[in-house]
Amino acid sequence: MRGEPLDAETIVSAAEEVLRRHGPEKATVLDVARMLGVSHGSVYRHFRSKTALREAVIRRWLDQVREDIAAAVQDPGLTPPDRLRALLTTMFAAKWTKAREDPELFATFRALATEHSTVSSAHVAFLLDQIRAIVDDGIARGDFAAGDPEEIARSILNATSRFHAPMHAEEWRSSEIEAESEGVISLIFNGIRAR
Amino acid sequence: MRGEPLDAETIVSAAEEVLRRHGPEKATVLDVARMLGVSHGSVYRHFRSKTALREAVIRRWLDQVREDIAAAVQDPGLTPPDRLRALLTTMFAAKWTKAREDPELFATFRALATEHSTVSSAHVAFLLDQIRAIVDDGIARGDFAAGDPEEIARSILNATSRFHAPMHAEEWRSSEIEAESEGVISLIFNGIRAR
Repeated sequence: MRGEPLDAETIVSAAEEVLRRHGPEKATVLDVARMLGVSHGSVYRHFRSKTALREAVIRRWLDQVREDIAAAVQDPGLTPPDRLRALLTTMFAAKWTKAREDPELFATFRALATEHSTVSSAHVAFLLDQIRAIVDDGIARGDFAAGDPEEIARSILNATSRFHAPMHAEEWRSSEIEAESEGVISLIFNGIRAR
Repeated sequence: MRGEPLDAETIVSAAEEVLRRHGPEKATVLDVARMLGVSHGSVYRHFRSKTALREAVIRRWLDQVREDIAAAVQDPGLTPPDRLRALLTTMFAAKWTKAREDPELFATFRALATEHSTVSSAHVAFLLDQIRAIVDDGIARGDFAAGDPEEIARSILNATSRFHAPMHAEEWRSSEIEAESEGVISLIFNGIRAR
């Protein structure tokens, strides 16, 4: 048994390792307790279920993704089109890298998205909110055409599903994926209508 | 045993019914032979495997979808933007209706798409070709801005994945799906850039 008091952060780190080793299907709360050398009950005191533990692990990863996105768009020298492009490419890269380099944690995220976990719906709400704010700013500055920023933000997220929705992960292994995402970004910015 | 000679079309119709009753996982060639009152070998003489039979069933459905799409875009009075819109909405509606009203056949199509069957890749090639031809025509007439029709067609198909890729079928049950698809079509036509 460990000497230090057990905090939630320590449990989340252990759960992350257990998920990496056993995958989301097989990992159990007991595995996490064993890795920490504590009782099953000590883990349950912080996380009431396996689901709560999986959500805490993925929430921590998504917090990091949100920080990366916020950092990519915060430079005041960037125009709204630059910020929108930075947001999209940072969002895509975060998903593609996770799917490739940390497949068991990505599978955990994918399972939560399929189950409509609040962790994944909160992340979608964050993305919509960020895109809406940039579109709003771009319309005000005259970079973007007039329209409803909320609807436009939702359409941008929907039009890029192939590049960020976890169910598309197998397609992200294609060597064409970056070029394909650039094609869709270009379509979003310019449309096809002659001007 | 049946009196008439057994043709491929009759077998495909029986296989369609068997897939509807048992689903793509459980349906067997033997079920098809039983439904027709013929031997297992009589079916194998036309279709060498369960996969070949599933592909023939889905190919027949997709032939119908391609006919519907061709009919929707053929009116010579339609402008290229009208034809592109008709192609996209006809393609979405065909998938949404099949997923809702014929779920076991849709699940068969989804399995073939996941396995990268030539039946589903040929369908994607058809769609790309149709979209490319419309874009080409629209650029020539000045309806659409200049660009590479092949790349633009691929970007249009990629930007609408959420509305036609079979892995998204659960999302098509949403009452918002039609409005969401209209939002993306509008984004594709107009983009967001001020003009």
